[in-house]
Amino acid sequence: MSRKPTLKDVAAAAGVSYQTVSKVLNGQGNVGQETHERILKAVDELSYRPNITARGLRNQATRLIGYSWKPMPPDQANPILDRFLSSLVKAAENAGYHVLLFPSQENDDDIAANYRELVRTNRVDGFILSSTNYDDERIRFLLDAEFPFVAFGRSNPDWAFDYIDVDGRAGIRAATRHLSEQGHSRIALLTWPGATKAKSRAGTSRTNGYYDAMNEAQLPIDPAWTREALGIFKHGFEQTQLLLMLPEDRRPTAVVAVDDQLAIGAMHAALESGLRIGAQFGVTGFDDTPGVQLLRPALTSVRQPIWDVGQRIVEVLVGLIQGAPTEQTQILLEPELIVRESSVRVGDL
Amino acid sequence: MSRKPTLKDVAAAAGVSYQTVSKVLNGQGNVGQETHERILKAVDELSYRPNITARGLRNQATRLIGYSWKPMPPDQANPILDRFLSSLVKAAENAGYHVLLFPSQENDDDIAANYRELVRTNRVDGFILSSTNYDDERIRFLLDAEFPFVAFGRSNPDWAFDYIDVDGRAGIRAATRHLSEQGHSRIALLTWPGATKAKSRAGTSRTNGYYDAMNEAQLPIDPAWTREALGIFKHGFEQTQLLLMLPEDRRPTAVVAVDDQLAIGAMHAALESGLRIGAQFGVTGFDDTPGVQLLRPALTSVRQPIWDVGQRIVEVLVGLIQGAPTEQTQILLEPELIVRESSVRVGDL
Repeated sequence: MSRKPTLKDVAAAAGVSYQTVSKVLNGQGNVGQETHERILKAVDELSYRPNITARGLRNQATRLIGYSWKPMPPDQANPILDRFLSSLVKAAENAGYHVLLFPSQENDDDIAANYRELVRTNRVDGFILSSTNYDDERIRFLLDAEFPFVAFGRSNPDWAFDYIDVDGRAGIRAATRHLSEQGHSRIALLTWPGATKAKSRAGTSRTNGYYDAMNEAQLPIDPAWTREALGIFKHGFEQTQLLLMLPEDRRPTAVVAVDDQLAIGAMHAALESGLRIGAQFGVTGFDDTPGVQLLRPALTSVRQPIWDVGQRIVEVLVGLIQGAPTEQTQILLEPELIVRESSVRVGDL
Repeated sequence: MSRKPTLKDVAAAAGVSYQTVSKVLNGQGNVGQETHERILKAVDELSYRPNITARGLRNQATRLIGYSWKPMPPDQANPILDRFLSSLVKAAENAGYHVLLFPSQENDDDIAANYRELVRTNRVDGFILSSTNYDDERIRFLLDAEFPFVAFGRSNPDWAFDYIDVDGRAGIRAATRHLSEQGHSRIALLTWPGATKAKSRAGTSRTNGYYDAMNEAQLPIDPAWTREALGIFKHGFEQTQLLLMLPEDRRPTAVVAVDDQLAIGAMHAALESGLRIGAQFGVTGFDDTPGVQLLRPALTSVRQPIWDVGQRIVEVLVGLIQGAPTEQTQILLEPELIVRESSVRVGDL
């Protein structure tokens, strides 16, 4: 059909009453499972979308915000989750909202399916997404559905949506500059797979920060110094072993890592090859994961302003939900380099 | 009044209609702030409680479960949050529920107030509580309100409520036994303040596990070996320094800590006094915080079956909400001792 489908079209297609469709789409119970499924099938086939503005005017707000993130594997610390959630909930409660959880589950072959059901049934008023990437299916779906959301992180440059992000490029630039100021001239980069080919959104930003600082300091860049590795200890360890096997005149004396796990792996590879961390081999991480201050030597890392990100994301999302006429929000917050022993030269090489 | 107050009594006391009270208590909008407050005041004064069973029968289920926990300070890792939340959401979604977040905020002088509002307004069908303690106000309130909840953790022995907990006593007993099997006979305990005087629920269980194992191994127990310390690095470090100042024949050669932060503090105090961890000084932690396997030496720790706890808590709670006739559930799950270098003697003392 060429005109926009209405609730009545869905009712006709599903062979039920207008009221039954409305019940299902508003998440109200008392409709049999079979009927429920028939209605959702009709919604899909007709590409029916509830009118968001009208929905707001009808005062059917749920006062719920959905938060979506990608959980870490069990043996890895999530450096920001606890604080970020505390911040989100605090800001949401101040605005009269509660936060509902949507971790992406392993083996999720159809990520958008979860969102489709939630949007269709009006379970939440809006979403907050983190762990974003290029071609992020969640963002694509929510944009198509014209559903309110704000991302912690960026995605495709030509997708117009609201986000708050931390300027990872500035963070890695600061870390690299710090190492060059400590007298290092052969500085390597441990970054995530695809970051150099624009396949990892956060990785690409951070990688660019390394090149910025190397160029600003007029340091040579050896292609062999940029190593791609999954953000886990083992890969940081192995890639650093490879770096340390380079001929002496090409062998790095410092490593900038795009996360703390890679940095800790690098530290241990250098330690095992007999180098003193800090004095002989500089290492920096990213995230300032709680606990890295306890490593010996303590790890220099880039700290994200997590609390602020949470506060501002909720503020922007509530504005979107309540229809306040705002410009699109695309904000980069500055991270802070926390200098500790792992990157400070206390002696000579 | 002697009979149980009804919705109509609340309406009369607040000077509004029955329907308006119902709207407010069911979290539906469109009621002015002043009226809203007047109604909640009347609810309080009359100690009105909605009939939970009737509410279920009226099919006003929210399909929402609230999760309440105490966030960690920013410089400390939360060892279980990410995995626990993933497990809760997975189990909840399988049962047709979503999870809503209620971190306790700092400077919360009236913890129960948050719950009162939620229970009164039917925002959730039930609660999951973690970070429980003796005299836990949340538990007291939810018991009084006869509102469905399940705790991850225990509280006062005479309070009858459903919980799943990890057997911390068995975990610390296993760690202590392991150290005695490694040949240590002077084993100290770092535990939380109040644990020896039954002021910290989890701390008391863990502390008892130490005494169990020391008695089973027929080892002497010096009162100076039990040190109370807040569960942070600094306190573990300082208390271990004090232990190492004891006269040689009373000086411990191993420390069992009730959390990983204390254990890492203990490791560093021993390292700084020139001891080799493992070979000369044994250390064990608790939680198996992601990352402790990366410490050098890697930390022996007690791992909680977090995923299982999440799955079973949701199962029990959904049973309570849906009124399935079950016995009270009070389950202790076994933790697992993960032995790493920090507790294994590879040489002689």
